[in-house]
Amino acid sequence: MNASCDFAQFEKDLASVAEQTEHALAYYLSRDFSPLYRRPNESSHAEEPSVLKLVDAMAYSTLSGGKRIRPYLTLSVCRMLGGNEEAALTLACALEMIHTYSLIHDDLPCVDNDDLRRGRPTNHKVFGEAGALFAGDALLTYAFEVATHARLSSDAIVSAVRALSEGAGHYGMLGGQMTDMDAEQKELSIEELCALHDMKTGALIRTAARLGCLSAEIDDVHIFDSIDSYASDIGYAFQIVDDVLDRYGDSRLLGKNIGSDAQSCKNTFLTFFSREEAMNRAKALTERAVMTVSAYEGSENLVLLAQYLLQRNK
Amino acid sequence: MNASCDFAQFEKDLASVAEQTEHALAYYLSRDFSPLYRRPNESSHAEEPSVLKLVDAMAYSTLSGGKRIRPYLTLSVCRMLGGNEEAALTLACALEMIHTYSLIHDDLPCVDNDDLRRGRPTNHKVFGEAGALFAGDALLTYAFEVATHARLSSDAIVSAVRALSEGAGHYGMLGGQMTDMDAEQKELSIEELCALHDMKTGALIRTAARLGCLSAEIDDVHIFDSIDSYASDIGYAFQIVDDVLDRYGDSRLLGKNIGSDAQSCKNTFLTFFSREEAMNRAKALTERAVMTVSAYEGSENLVLLAQYLLQRNK
Repeated sequence: MNASCDFAQFEKDLASVAEQTEHALAYYLSRDFSPLYRRPNESSHAEEPSVLKLVDAMAYSTLSGGKRIRPYLTLSVCRMLGGNEEAALTLACALEMIHTYSLIHDDLPCVDNDDLRRGRPTNHKVFGEAGALFAGDALLTYAFEVATHARLSSDAIVSAVRALSEGAGHYGMLGGQMTDMDAEQKELSIEELCALHDMKTGALIRTAARLGCLSAEIDDVHIFDSIDSYASDIGYAFQIVDDVLDRYGDSRLLGKNIGSDAQSCKNTFLTFFSREEAMNRAKALTERAVMTVSAYEGSENLVLLAQYLLQRNK
Repeated sequence: MNASCDFAQFEKDLASVAEQTEHALAYYLSRDFSPLYRRPNESSHAEEPSVLKLVDAMAYSTLSGGKRIRPYLTLSVCRMLGGNEEAALTLACALEMIHTYSLIHDDLPCVDNDDLRRGRPTNHKVFGEAGALFAGDALLTYAFEVATHARLSSDAIVSAVRALSEGAGHYGMLGGQMTDMDAEQKELSIEELCALHDMKTGALIRTAARLGCLSAEIDDVHIFDSIDSYASDIGYAFQIVDDVLDRYGDSRLLGKNIGSDAQSCKNTFLTFFSREEAMNRAKALTERAVMTVSAYEGSENLVLLAQYLLQRNK
């Protein structure tokens, strides 16, 4: 396979989905969508200055670009299964809002106390701590409202709400954030480190894949399990590559200082494996993911996604 | 009407619903319910120490008693409309989780910086700021999962998810919290004060009533509007009485210092009205609420609820 050539086209596809996602997110955060604007006879507080400020704070962090890997995953699974792409995009937007809220809350002074995110001041640096707290809360809340507007059967929407909640909740992403915070004061075992990442980043990646299935109104445990297994494997490989890039990557490409995790005593896979062992593990996971998903017709984009995430240098 | 006699029975009913709610909330936060415990073949992180700590923090604030006015409202509307009481209780629990999360986040140092809530240390005093932040996030997230487990049609569940999200979101409760925070540095007009309360406390009271309708699978705009109007009126009256009690009430009964709002320069209805004018306004709102709901057979409990909230002294 001529990797660079294939990835050139893949990167175009990825950028196109990112653009679609950004556009849809802007729509959901605008007055064009707002359900309250569509009910002219109902009293609305949408013009209150503090409400406008809150919406600004929500949009500031949501519409900040990014590769939009999760939406790409949702849409690719949807396309492979012949689902409703418009509905997949709606569900992907809901998940991006949840992902965004988690970054806003993680950046707060009481958690990571970060001043910069993707080269811009973090939400609380612009809107104050309470503003950022509420903007995060509002994005999490609004995600579920957006999900209910997906053009799917009510059965599929209920499943999507449950998938979003389970993925983001205390046995999923939030459990991972709590574990990560507690881990700053101790050394984790390899099992604990895997559990942390399986919750903190793995859960939402699996949710993204699950939402793709639901946008095709799929209710087949076998397909769910395959897609889930694929998503778990690429999520795990993603995290290993992240740790390797953080130690050995190009700081100019990454846009951050190399070795920052090691400096802050963070637990990484390189505590347990050499660089080569770690990359071999990531390769094996990627190969298994590719094998799992290759059983389905139209899985080319999912195969490329897995391979792309393995070879990335930023 | 012999008020004290009627309210004795009413208070028993209220206490009984509060007990039912507490019991159901404990169930939803226990391993007996947890969906992940019911899927034995799936990997689960429910035993991770940090996850257990997060669930403890969620339960600490959720299972702290309280009058449970909102669940009483949801169940009373459900009973009046002949709905499914078990489903109403499930939806009421989802709403109580959202109400609880909002208290946890409001108590945080970056918002109100409160050390005590209902006579106990606030969540962040026990679990740390980040722990309280994540516990609040987890309750908000889990509320939507719990709602999907109501034994209702998927159509009704989708409507319930939307009602919860709209009531708690940036045009509802969170818009009110943001407005309240911004209002600490300025004097509000009476219109702005009404808008603040209509969002901050009114929105969730209307949501509680709406959930009662949905638990009866009601899809009739006329009934929705009546119940909504009733809920708006009792919510507004509730807030006026709150402001009057805060200035003139019995500190021993209220469990807090009298005049605390005035001291912290908070905008209250007593900035605009005398005590008598304020209580007359609350009475007029209560009478209108009673009139609206009396059109329905079986509305006795809703009538009593409106009257009870008007005459309360704590």
